Amino acid sequence: MTRTVGVFLSPVLDLRFHYGDAFARLAPQLDLKLPHEVDDPDAVRFAIAWVPSADAFAPYRNLGFVSSMAAGVDAILACPSLPDVPVIRVRDPQQAQIMAGYVVSAVLWWERLFPEHLANQKDRIWHRFSIRQPSSATIGIIGYGLMGQATALTLRTLGFNVVAQVRSTPERMIEGVRLETGPDALKRVAAQSDYLVNLLPLTAETKGIFSADVLAAMPRGSVFINAARGGQLDEAALMAAMDSGHIRGAALDVFAEEPLPRDHPFWSNPNILLTSHDAAEASKEALVSTVARQVARLLAGLPIEAPVSRERGY
Amino acid sequence: MTRTVGVFLSPVLDLRFHYGDAFARLAPQLDLKLPHEVDDPDAVRFAIAWVPSADAFAPYRNLGFVSSMAAGVDAILACPSLPDVPVIRVRDPQQAQIMAGYVVSAVLWWERLFPEHLANQKDRIWHRFSIRQPSSATIGIIGYGLMGQATALTLRTLGFNVVAQVRSTPERMIEGVRLETGPDALKRVAAQSDYLVNLLPLTAETKGIFSADVLAAMPRGSVFINAARGGQLDEAALMAAMDSGHIRGAALDVFAEEPLPRDHPFWSNPNILLTSHDAAEASKEALVSTVARQVARLLAGLPIEAPVSRERGY
Repeated sequence: MTRTVGVFLSPVLDLRFHYGDAFARLAPQLDLKLPHEVDDPDAVRFAIAWVPSADAFAPYRNLGFVSSMAAGVDAILACPSLPDVPVIRVRDPQQAQIMAGYVVSAVLWWERLFPEHLANQKDRIWHRFSIRQPSSATIGIIGYGLMGQATALTLRTLGFNVVAQVRSTPERMIEGVRLETGPDALKRVAAQSDYLVNLLPLTAETKGIFSADVLAAMPRGSVFINAARGGQLDEAALMAAMDSGHIRGAALDVFAEEPLPRDHPFWSNPNILLTSHDAAEASKEALVSTVARQVARLLAGLPIEAPVSRERGY
Repeated sequence: MTRTVGVFLSPVLDLRFHYGDAFARLAPQLDLKLPHEVDDPDAVRFAIAWVPSADAFAPYRNLGFVSSMAAGVDAILACPSLPDVPVIRVRDPQQAQIMAGYVVSAVLWWERLFPEHLANQKDRIWHRFSIRQPSSATIGIIGYGLMGQATALTLRTLGFNVVAQVRSTPERMIEGVRLETGPDALKRVAAQSDYLVNLLPLTAETKGIFSADVLAAMPRGSVFINAARGGQLDEAALMAAMDSGHIRGAALDVFAEEPLPRDHPFWSNPNILLTSHDAAEASKEALVSTVARQVARLLAGLPIEAPVSRERGY
């Protein structure tokens, strides 16, 4: 069997360590190499990348496509050496469910009064809190793709109000989810959200989109949840909005600088629920099947499916 | 307008404080009194009770029905002075969603590694955890009524495996929920549950049902979640199973003795998520509409709807 050669390109993650076994097991027809293992760069037909370095793609002149390791392609599209080939990303319904779990766990942290319950347990205080009706709380979702829709579905199942900003008709209509569209939809959603959830792709358009203005539009006492990219949030504006008491809390999984520096004030803020960019990752199986399917199409002379739009950025 | 007289019977909760306004607003045709306000006991046509004292019902000879404040009727059925009249309970789909939120928040506490994340945030440690696929975890539900079904639906939406013990065909079939029936169904569900969730009514049959045997049948490292009644759990057996490491954690909202005594070892166990019997309460609106509807039927000479079975105990 002639195996099709691909290359892992990431200076920050050992992709061989994470995905080598899954490719060997599920797609033995693919020969995944690390850059230093490549003898003949012209034989490399595809690349799997994550935050590639500036010249990462330079040696490979015969790439048929580039795949992100996950759902995001922002760092790949920003790479100066990226050739003019289709770029694809992993769309994994299971990852969407894991992301829904992240968002739901954050909403329930506040709605179910975890901070208060944990403090009472520590102090051995028996106090029966009243949990408010889910229908009294509105969750606004910004970024209504696979992950936003999975999140909305779960929140609706739990009885919460859900409103989402959309640019076009979503793939799936979910009963009871209100959709807002148009130029000021973000602010209109923010203004009615007890929880504002960011699930947007990072693009030129979404960079810094959660600005002081948008945070100010949120109701007093509301919560911001960032599960997308740190670069989309004005972190200083969030700190100021939390210091003033306008924003009551935040669940943050992503940051402008990662790893988050040890001296960053987010770490010690008792109203921030902080995780280390691990809200949801695509499954190994989803990455392998996405890549294997497109390699087969490449070899058959068929076009790569569902490439991202370089203009839109996702 | 002649108002129909009812009486609040609870030595532990001020039902007038909690429900007086809702009855005045939504059912002004009802005249709800506290026992010391009743001049003519024979005029009292219905009672709303919560953990009534032994002789609570004795003065009232013309009751048409007794309603629980919530979903549980165990303390009412156990009351020696309960007359031979229909007993009803509140079946509130919104309460079922709130209960689903309680169970989901407990499952996600462990599945999403909250203890580890909170410890890392405290120590400013950036560590990217891998969240396991929801399809790798099985949640077993014991007590598959309105609350169990709402819980199963949400867990399925998040991608978890769900298995439930049922005695009869459930009202609602939920895609992907496996049903176990028969005499040893409880142990079969326990044996496959990473999380075993108790949502049973307390009856003679379910008292102490979560015994050392059932806990031993659960897989090593599994979690027990009790959102029903403390009397259904052998608390000493749970402590022993946790001490031995067989059971990894527990989310407990209900206890054999409530309020939980200050010197009880549950308070300080770091693997117990403890709340004060506030997982879910029926909405005021649901109680008022349940009671008002049955009063109307009583006055019209129609039978009370859906009384609990004294034989089954729920």
